[in-house]
Amino acid sequence: MYLPPGVTPTDFAAAIRHFETAVGKEWVFTKDEDVDLYKDSFSPFLGEPEERVASAAVAPDSVEQVQQIVRIANQYKIPLYAISTGRNLGYGGSAPVYSGCVVVDLKRMNRILEVSEDHASVLVEPGVSYFDLYRHIKERKLKVWVDVPDPGWGSLVGNALDHGGGYTRPYFRNHFDAHCGMEVVLPNAELIRTGMGALPGSKTWQQYKFGVGPWVDGIFSQSNFGIVTKMGFWLMPQPEAYFSGTVYAQKHEDLHQLIRVLTILEDGGITNGMPDTSSPLLGIISIAEQARMLAVDTPQAAEEPQLLALRDKAATGDYTGLESYGQRKGIPYWSATIKFYGPAKVVPLQWEYCKEKFSAIAGATFKDGELVRFPLASDPTDQARFPEFGIPSLNNFSIGAESSTNPQPLHGHMWFTCIIPRTGAAIIEVNQMFAAAAREFGLPELRFQLPAWYWQRSAICIFGFPVTTDIETNKKNRGHIFRLIEMAAKKGWGEYRTPPAYQDAVVGAYSFNNHSLLKFHESIKDAIDPNGILSPGRYGIWPKHLRKKI
Amino acid sequence: MYLPPGVTPTDFAAAIRHFETAVGKEWVFTKDEDVDLYKDSFSPFLGEPEERVASAAVAPDSVEQVQQIVRIANQYKIPLYAISTGRNLGYGGSAPVYSGCVVVDLKRMNRILEVSEDHASVLVEPGVSYFDLYRHIKERKLKVWVDVPDPGWGSLVGNALDHGGGYTRPYFRNHFDAHCGMEVVLPNAELIRTGMGALPGSKTWQQYKFGVGPWVDGIFSQSNFGIVTKMGFWLMPQPEAYFSGTVYAQKHEDLHQLIRVLTILEDGGITNGMPDTSSPLLGIISIAEQARMLAVDTPQAAEEPQLLALRDKAATGDYTGLESYGQRKGIPYWSATIKFYGPAKVVPLQWEYCKEKFSAIAGATFKDGELVRFPLASDPTDQARFPEFGIPSLNNFSIGAESSTNPQPLHGHMWFTCIIPRTGAAIIEVNQMFAAAAREFGLPELRFQLPAWYWQRSAICIFGFPVTTDIETNKKNRGHIFRLIEMAAKKGWGEYRTPPAYQDAVVGAYSFNNHSLLKFHESIKDAIDPNGILSPGRYGIWPKHLRKKI
Repeated sequence: MYLPPGVTPTDFAAAIRHFETAVGKEWVFTKDEDVDLYKDSFSPFLGEPEERVASAAVAPDSVEQVQQIVRIANQYKIPLYAISTGRNLGYGGSAPVYSGCVVVDLKRMNRILEVSEDHASVLVEPGVSYFDLYRHIKERKLKVWVDVPDPGWGSLVGNALDHGGGYTRPYFRNHFDAHCGMEVVLPNAELIRTGMGALPGSKTWQQYKFGVGPWVDGIFSQSNFGIVTKMGFWLMPQPEAYFSGTVYAQKHEDLHQLIRVLTILEDGGITNGMPDTSSPLLGIISIAEQARMLAVDTPQAAEEPQLLALRDKAATGDYTGLESYGQRKGIPYWSATIKFYGPAKVVPLQWEYCKEKFSAIAGATFKDGELVRFPLASDPTDQARFPEFGIPSLNNFSIGAESSTNPQPLHGHMWFTCIIPRTGAAIIEVNQMFAAAAREFGLPELRFQLPAWYWQRSAICIFGFPVTTDIETNKKNRGHIFRLIEMAAKKGWGEYRTPPAYQDAVVGAYSFNNHSLLKFHESIKDAIDPNGILSPGRYGIWPKHLRKKI
Repeated sequence: MYLPPGVTPTDFAAAIRHFETAVGKEWVFTKDEDVDLYKDSFSPFLGEPEERVASAAVAPDSVEQVQQIVRIANQYKIPLYAISTGRNLGYGGSAPVYSGCVVVDLKRMNRILEVSEDHASVLVEPGVSYFDLYRHIKERKLKVWVDVPDPGWGSLVGNALDHGGGYTRPYFRNHFDAHCGMEVVLPNAELIRTGMGALPGSKTWQQYKFGVGPWVDGIFSQSNFGIVTKMGFWLMPQPEAYFSGTVYAQKHEDLHQLIRVLTILEDGGITNGMPDTSSPLLGIISIAEQARMLAVDTPQAAEEPQLLALRDKAATGDYTGLESYGQRKGIPYWSATIKFYGPAKVVPLQWEYCKEKFSAIAGATFKDGELVRFPLASDPTDQARFPEFGIPSLNNFSIGAESSTNPQPLHGHMWFTCIIPRTGAAIIEVNQMFAAAAREFGLPELRFQLPAWYWQRSAICIFGFPVTTDIETNKKNRGHIFRLIEMAAKKGWGEYRTPPAYQDAVVGAYSFNNHSLLKFHESIKDAIDPNGILSPGRYGIWPKHLRKKI
């Protein structure tokens, strides 16, 4: 057993007894075999002393039990670490940022408290997964969709609090923005409801976000200021239909116009799905493939040596050869598939309008997609299409899995996820940065990548690293991530989310005016959690007694 | 001169000298004739001791000057009250909540720091008005729209911080939700930038909201936790066209279906403008007319006595007579005009789809609107149409103005603005509440009203009171607002915004768990503003030394 630092075995034992009284003996876990389950399955510290471990875990079933746990923790100065379902793989899983925390596992609080079809909203507890809510809706044949992330076993509350997102309309794709109303247990065990929920018997808790006075919801995301016990979300009314279309552009320089027009069309609400951009000519690959390649050094799929040579040349800035190759072979340089949710008679005309706008790119060609009507008679055969239809899946766990082409399955992965401007210039620049990094790190040449995710107004580009069972490799890769954080910050780019191993470093890059924002977070932390019991260190916020001087 | 309570004349004089050194003598106002300008022009306390008055005003021109002012205020324990342009008429204007504050007037900080057409975003200082930004965009012929509130002379920053809204697409109509990134001077004079702005040289400050770690922006809205000195906003790309259509329903009971279908269509993104609902048969009137009527007791426009009698009967729940009258005369019971922004070939088909959906209401009839293309060749002749085309105006100041039909122009008005669910049932219920209130207050019979404003997922109904020059009338009306707050709270409804006179009462209704949310606000206040110098009392948040026990 790993004791919380500074807590005597006697005090810890007493606290455990109190936890048992609060939630029942069977929901307090202290045996190594149980507590080990709360380690990060994708930990980059496997077998190292820095591996983050819990001292125990406790699984409350109600808000009152959460409050009791927090009271006991304050009494004995025991650090807690709250998780919703702990499925945050690649970003820390269920392991605490600070070893020795008692994990507060909210999985039993999995009630779907309210679903309104007319208002397209839901109120859920933290243990409710996307699968749970999807099944609930499907069983009742309600005409609403959940915007799902990949993968679908995570918690709606946990994902939104971690600033996760999905794949449908921009309005819903930003999971935190699409929330409406919270209930929170504060570090002093007080219970608050935010927005209209603060009004007893409120009729609009899930209909109006702000309530009156300061809107505090945001400070409970990516932080350690409270344990969210209920959260409301806006759902997407089931569209009548879906349509997509693909635009192809022939020249390297066309990327600028392609992204520019795409962005204006999306900001204008005309295309309203998550765009898929790629480069057939550059042989762009998925992040998952990238991570696997870095892990096992798989040679790139056999392709014409001439093409590979032209790609190398393009990487140096001379892409005319690659362009002419593409034109001869009929391979477009860029492609973007854009998507439309709406009435069946409307969506094809939205695409027509988009085609007109994309025609500003000389030589652009188009391919129409097929009209899909909802509800679907059955799930699509291709699981990769699930997220755009609001269907949760675990498809993404094929990342690095064992297969005929990959004899060395990954232990796990970690992402360096960098927010960049939605411009062709930024996409080219981030690729140059990644290429320089790969050279510096002695990694195989990276292919050009387009953003893994188009957020509402920005884009996210990812550099994926494998987590292995080899300590030296893991150490090296951790160092690479620190280096990437530094390289990106120099360009004015920051990360939106990161595993505990890098939280101090990522937050450290947001250093405007001598880290004044972090200091502000710390002043709030000190005021509302004087004993520093809640999730110490999460997103760089340490309680006073554990704080290092900046 | 009114001194800040507890501050000696010597200390105040010293502070004023310091302010003068900081911003220049000509930008510190201490003469009564200057300071009086900061009174609330719509004050409900006119001529009473509770009238909120400033002790002085100071107008900085830069962030550094704001920081200096805050430092001086801390040194001499002088309360400040920050305003953007002070145009918040009906909600307090430029007067402090706590008399004796020095008003920090940010009108000189009126720089438009960045406008991006491609990213449809802007970064502005607090003194920038909707007119300023509109002119800036128009001069440069940029293809972006500003979502304007009524009226257009207010500040983008001030309006968003006060949770104001506008009239275009739901995505932009919620002004606080459409912001991206802030710069804030804290009560200890530290400067922070939020979101991606915390990263030095950030390239995505106006493109990604959250940055990393807790998202603090919300706590600076409707509060006194900081002075916002820069704020980013997302703009609406200029649509190609606009279309509207009106649906008419014949029966009282149809209101439920009408609002239900309307809400699903809006949540689904199919209609994407601000709906106008009315009841030609109930003779529904505007809030402005309501306020004027309450002020001068104007008889309702001459109408058939038979119709008036049928309306009275409908108010008691027997509306069959009114329905048949409408059918005989061809007057529909309800009407809703819904709006569409988008490609010219798309918007009429969105309306077609909406008509199909509204056809579920038996007897529904329709009227097609006209297609409007942008940019407009010239402004519409009807100023009431300005907001839906993103054009700022002062049209709303015709409220209660002198005219041939109104010989007694209003001194001002104050709103009781209540958030209700977007349902027919809630709209009927709020009218019953207003009618009961009017009877209790001995006011003229109120006509039925539909929501003044459809927020994203909720609706806002308004009870307007005139502000007069008669102390007794004002006192009575203040009492009425307190009573309405109470009546609404019993129904589970709260107000979203209110003048200083009612902020304690409105916030007091958000009392869940013994006012735990307010106590949480207070604990943040105490931590970040220990001297309690910033905007004491704003939205019920008082510094420790002025706090009353709940």
